[in-house]
Amino acid sequence: MRYSDHANPVLTLTAGPVDAYPDVLRGLGRTVLYDYDPTFQLLYETVVGKAQKAMRLSTRPVILHGEPVLGLEAAAASLITPGDVVLNLVSGVYGKGFGYWAKRYSPHLIEIEVPYNEAIDPQAVAGMLKAHPEITIVCVCHHDTPSGTINPIDAIGSLVSAHGAYLIVDAVSSFGGMKTHPEDCSADMYVTGPNKCLGAPPGLTLMGVSDRAWAKMKANDEAPRASMLSIVDWEHAWSRDEPFPFTPSVAEINGLDVALDLYLGEGPEAVWARHALTARAMRAGVTAMGLSLWAASDAIASPTTTAVRTPDGIDEAAIRQAARARYGVVFSAGRGETLGKLTRIGHMGPTAQPIHAVAALTALGGAIKALGKDLAVGRGIEAALAVIDADA
Amino acid sequence: MRYSDHANPVLTLTAGPVDAYPDVLRGLGRTVLYDYDPTFQLLYETVVGKAQKAMRLSTRPVILHGEPVLGLEAAAASLITPGDVVLNLVSGVYGKGFGYWAKRYSPHLIEIEVPYNEAIDPQAVAGMLKAHPEITIVCVCHHDTPSGTINPIDAIGSLVSAHGAYLIVDAVSSFGGMKTHPEDCSADMYVTGPNKCLGAPPGLTLMGVSDRAWAKMKANDEAPRASMLSIVDWEHAWSRDEPFPFTPSVAEINGLDVALDLYLGEGPEAVWARHALTARAMRAGVTAMGLSLWAASDAIASPTTTAVRTPDGIDEAAIRQAARARYGVVFSAGRGETLGKLTRIGHMGPTAQPIHAVAALTALGGAIKALGKDLAVGRGIEAALAVIDADA
Amino acid sequence: MRYSDHANPVLTLTAGPVDAYPDVLRGLGRTVLYDYDPTFQLLYETVVGKAQKAMRLSTRPVILHGEPVLGLEAAAASLITPGDVVLNLVSGVYGKGFGYWAKRYSPHLIEIEVPYNEAIDPQAVAGMLKAHPEITIVCVCHHDTPSGTINPIDAIGSLVSAHGAYLIVDAVSSFGGMKTHPEDCSADMYVTGPNKCLGAPPGLTLMGVSDRAWAKMKANDEAPRASMLSIVDWEHAWSRDEPFPFTPSVAEINGLDVALDLYLGEGPEAVWARHALTARAMRAGVTAMGLSLWAASDAIASPTTTAVRTPDGIDEAAIRQAARARYGVVFSAGRGETLGKLTRIGHMGPTAQPIHAVAALTALGGAIKALGKDLAVGRGIEAALAVIDADA
Amino acid sequence: MRYSDHANPVLTLTAGPVDAYPDVLRGLGRTVLYDYDPTFQLLYETVVGKAQKAMRLSTRPVILHGEPVLGLEAAAASLITPGDVVLNLVSGVYGKGFGYWAKRYSPHLIEIEVPYNEAIDPQAVAGMLKAHPEITIVCVCHHDTPSGTINPIDAIGSLVSAHGAYLIVDAVSSFGGMKTHPEDCSADMYVTGPNKCLGAPPGLTLMGVSDRAWAKMKANDEAPRASMLSIVDWEHAWSRDEPFPFTPSVAEINGLDVALDLYLGEGPEAVWARHALTARAMRAGVTAMGLSLWAASDAIASPTTTAVRTPDGIDEAAIRQAARARYGVVFSAGRGETLGKLTRIGHMGPTAQPIHAVAALTALGGAIKALGKDLAVGRGIEAALAVIDADA
Repeated sequence: MRYSDHANPVLTLTAGPVDAYPDVLRGLGRTVLYDYDPTFQLLYETVVGKAQKAMRLSTRPVILHGEPVLGLEAAAASLITPGDVVLNLVSGVYGKGFGYWAKRYSPHLIEIEVPYNEAIDPQAVAGMLKAHPEITIVCVCHHDTPSGTINPIDAIGSLVSAHGAYLIVDAVSSFGGMKTHPEDCSADMYVTGPNKCLGAPPGLTLMGVSDRAWAKMKANDEAPRASMLSIVDWEHAWSRDEPFPFTPSVAEINGLDVALDLYLGEGPEAVWARHALTARAMRAGVTAMGLSLWAASDAIASPTTTAVRTPDGIDEAAIRQAARARYGVVFSAGRGETLGKLTRIGHMGPTAQPIHAVAALTALGGAIKALGKDLAVGRGIEAALAVIDADA
Repeated sequence: MRYSDHANPVLTLTAGPVDAYPDVLRGLGRTVLYDYDPTFQLLYETVVGKAQKAMRLSTRPVILHGEPVLGLEAAAASLITPGDVVLNLVSGVYGKGFGYWAKRYSPHLIEIEVPYNEAIDPQAVAGMLKAHPEITIVCVCHHDTPSGTINPIDAIGSLVSAHGAYLIVDAVSSFGGMKTHPEDCSADMYVTGPNKCLGAPPGLTLMGVSDRAWAKMKANDEAPRASMLSIVDWEHAWSRDEPFPFTPSVAEINGLDVALDLYLGEGPEAVWARHALTARAMRAGVTAMGLSLWAASDAIASPTTTAVRTPDGIDEAAIRQAARARYGVVFSAGRGETLGKLTRIGHMGPTAQPIHAVAALTALGGAIKALGKDLAVGRGIEAALAVIDADA
Repeated sequence: MRYSDHANPVLTLTAGPVDAYPDVLRGLGRTVLYDYDPTFQLLYETVVGKAQKAMRLSTRPVILHGEPVLGLEAAAASLITPGDVVLNLVSGVYGKGFGYWAKRYSPHLIEIEVPYNEAIDPQAVAGMLKAHPEITIVCVCHHDTPSGTINPIDAIGSLVSAHGAYLIVDAVSSFGGMKTHPEDCSADMYVTGPNKCLGAPPGLTLMGVSDRAWAKMKANDEAPRASMLSIVDWEHAWSRDEPFPFTPSVAEINGLDVALDLYLGEGPEAVWARHALTARAMRAGVTAMGLSLWAASDAIASPTTTAVRTPDGIDEAAIRQAARARYGVVFSAGRGETLGKLTRIGHMGPTAQPIHAVAALTALGGAIKALGKDLAVGRGIEAALAVIDADA
Repeated sequence: MRYSDHANPVLTLTAGPVDAYPDVLRGLGRTVLYDYDPTFQLLYETVVGKAQKAMRLSTRPVILHGEPVLGLEAAAASLITPGDVVLNLVSGVYGKGFGYWAKRYSPHLIEIEVPYNEAIDPQAVAGMLKAHPEITIVCVCHHDTPSGTINPIDAIGSLVSAHGAYLIVDAVSSFGGMKTHPEDCSADMYVTGPNKCLGAPPGLTLMGVSDRAWAKMKANDEAPRASMLSIVDWEHAWSRDEPFPFTPSVAEINGLDVALDLYLGEGPEAVWARHALTARAMRAGVTAMGLSLWAASDAIASPTTTAVRTPDGIDEAAIRQAARARYGVVFSAGRGETLGKLTRIGHMGPTAQPIHAVAALTALGGAIKALGKDLAVGRGIEAALAVIDADA
């Protein structure tokens, strides 16, 4: 028996998109209301309010109507001006990528770059800020998904705040799966979305914006306006009394409404706990089985994605193909520089369940064994189980 | 972290109801048409045609509008008359239960009963039929779900057919998960439903009826008519040109339509194969882990449910509670005589996936370990994996 | 342009099944839980509690797992014994039909029968009860759907109660669409369901049972037990701590849960008001257009169904075919004695909206015009609009 | 009885978003697959193929992951360079708006502008092209939705093609509701989306791109790349073997898949016919009732939206409020210059049903009457019915 490429797999344990919660999937199918209808306008205001609560913001977040890559590009386009000096912190492919956008809007780009299995050291940031008092904007990716590693954004945020620079945070694949909020890290622009740990489909950006970021964007004549890339056009769109700059993605809003209810209803702390436990079980199993984690240390390993280093002599793509064909389990590859070097198992939203770590370990171990490397799969499961049971 | 009794579990690996296929769940939400609307009448005829194809019948099956317990009671009420001599074959709680219904309609009840972890021996049936040429009706439960054991209905059916008696088969939890069809076992009444291996919710009965069973029922003045228990009222209801005796369960028909499409589209042989492989992996894991199977032999163990004997000194209910609380995995208890003696893990429809056997083994093993019995869970997983891999 | 018989119509304005509310349709697709899972058992208890609130009962209602025809048959089978003298009140096809069931369980059947466009006069009931002190059970159909007429059950109930007899009420197509509750009419058995005015699909019965009806049923050895027809088996099934007699229809329960939320959320009085207004607009339009109502008087015309007398010389089936083919609007025919004599337009649940009366009038008028009878459709719309506007 | 602003209306008869087909709403809830999963990549290629068939294109269309305003902005940004001379044809607010985008990318903008209740005359275009041989790009809005008027794009396209210029067409609210395809009008960029006449929610753009438009965009160094606004990044994304530039909107693709099946399954000609008939019935009713159409002539009135001129002395917003509050029917206002001057009734996708024109006429007429202007609503219905019946 082999799972066909032409039929849905059994489990999608990727670093996103992941399958949405069943309640969210049904929520997507609510009646599509006219965007000027008062019921929809009220719903939109309500959803923004729920997002504000989930993000623990003192101001209203912005919803943009494209997946978070839109939010990141829009943040760069709106906030960064040719006069800004940008410090971009790079610990992975996504952090590196943001630098290209930053450079599109300002020629003054400084980077701190660490190997892609390590995290940014706040001391290095402190040093750089001291050395370059002219830095006005700092950019950091919280969870560099292609590496499955976490940067210490709260510590970095304190330094940036003390320096007086603006902070742009990419928290796309961390928010909702661990304790992180815009104001915890003093972010001026904090970009996330519903399609990772909130367990909704891709199609929207959620963005926390500080008052001074609003002011800087509005003062920036080059900030996109009358454009899909505009943030400023949406400043007041949350209000039931204001029209939308263009038609919002009604179905995605309906889905987000449910996703936020689930997140707040289960309780953020409980949600983070099952992400963390799933990841810990996964890591324990990976190493017990005889495989290596990509992250240089447990302390920086993401609770929402576990990256496993590809064993020598094994083709990483073949691992994922075998896991899907044999067990119906789908994993993510690396991207860019990490492609081929690691396999990623996501623990996000509905897939952040410890029992799924067991399935993941079995499928991963079984796939690698099938490719010729001997592994102690049973030992991996026992180790994972010990972690889960220690928490019960 | 513990899963609350007030929130949905992660995996429902029970002997039914099991969760429906996602496509079926969406199918339930199709527009509810008026039962006299030509589009609905055509749909109904089409669904009966698909059921006929799935059941490999030469005649049209009947749909009754209640879960299969209705079909079983209705079969007894319609077919059995006071003049009939009924041979009821008992290898478990459900087989035994049917005898009570049989007795309601005829005082002449003979039973062959074997221990509830064994199966009926066709030789015993042959002997009984020889000893009692007056037997007119034989009743057998194919998969006695509370035991997870399978009776050899095709062999039994040949004997009954040669004897000239009518055969009533309860195939509720086997059809769709293994090779079994009404005409393979020469059944006169073959009762199943969408809510086990077809992966749809409970609420309907599917019934194969032989021509001579139709004749016997129609000749029986005591057969229910103008009643929820009637079968004969529904003889022509499949036709788009005939009215329904009463309002059919429109949403369940919509769901069944999708379930049959999935079954026929994936291919019955492929569906049976994944049920069988899941069960084999499960059994290999159970024994490797140090637990015992309930079924007296592998040959009679069901491909759709694995019953695991409760270890001495352990409270069976506590096993299921621990599996749910710790891992979010739900199993079935035994019923009646088997209650407390075994735990049942279902492999039905969407849950008949080998990777779910891994989750089941882990949750079962983890739960029993938590209750104080040492088990080699890792060895169980390795054994299951070996079975799955041997098939890949 | 003509609507095909092979594709869904635009509007199903029938006397049931009607299309379900979109929220209910999505609710049907919730995860199918194991019926012994604590989350499902809690849900079931909660749903029974919501039904109790909606039915304004002081005791818990019973849910049976078949459409209300099951509830009606089960009520007769459980409550009526050979020693009972039954008075059956007949003002239509459904009332008449109940008499056949009554007679199955007791030979002593008395009927009051009025023409099928009239209602039962409480005075006649009073007279009959006086003349026959031996009457122990009275049966009445509240809304005899094939006639679209309402019987005064609250007044009848007072008389029956004073007499000391038991009262069985068929409120299938009235409950939820007008002010009627079991205790308002002192009913001992009050049968309704989700598939009419509650806007859910057919498949369940809701039943209010008085304490003395419970006692009578339990004392009745012939009351069905271990049967689909049993009521007494379900007495304690509402409790999260009790097992179900057989597998409940999980998806239908999920749908009912949403339907009850909608009914209680919108507010029963508001729901009744839009049923009543839709029906009043409909009736005003029908007569203004030059057609006749079936009901002998406005006072007995149902707020949930409007029955329109077939004009002389017109084939009733042709009216419905034309309405569907030309406008995509589906109506109900009569049944039995009223078949061919009237066309029924339902105002139930999601279709009880005054604007749909406008569509119904247009489709009905247009269809009849197409068959050769001249009608003032515009005048009908104006009259309907006047009724709607008078209420705004 | 009045419909609350806090609850969904009964009918959304707007110029978009309109409610999606029920099948599409359920399609949105399909499992969210990983965008690199082979099943999803195959689905995406299949959906692009269906869109190609629906658009009757000889080349593959592009899907962009934002509502069509993204497609329009992206088209301007990608195709128009500072060296281009752009002729923008303006017959309404949306046509006018495109000029602002055009000007963002080239200083050379010429416009032909006609009153916003008229259409562009191809002769005027011919004259302008002759007078300005330097024109390299022509832009036209097919259905200027805020006016409900149609421009003759096929005739214009022939002229532009003969001239050798590129043609950008905004067909957002016409495609799928009338006979229009990119190659019928020789469009180089033809922008539409699923959220109008295809009956899916807003969130995607569908774009037909000619070979020479691809060449021009790829040669344009300023065309957006690594951006949400990029078209060229998506050139090969249709292929199951190519990665996506960023995560596509999986749920919207699932919905589009169903919407295209419905469109192709019903048959484009049949779909256009019911849009056209609905609009004709609407227009007949509007004038018979004593109201005026906005469009200068029937020939240019859109089959997908009917714009009704606001009667003197009436507040247009009050009309829509009354229609919603009294009848639960939602209409669109005008936009920009047409705001306050007209009310728009959409006939798009699921709402393009003649019987809904009857509801619309009643609600519109009733609302205006309620504001003090006497109208012959009944006469309007009769006129609409005559149009519908003439077609039956």
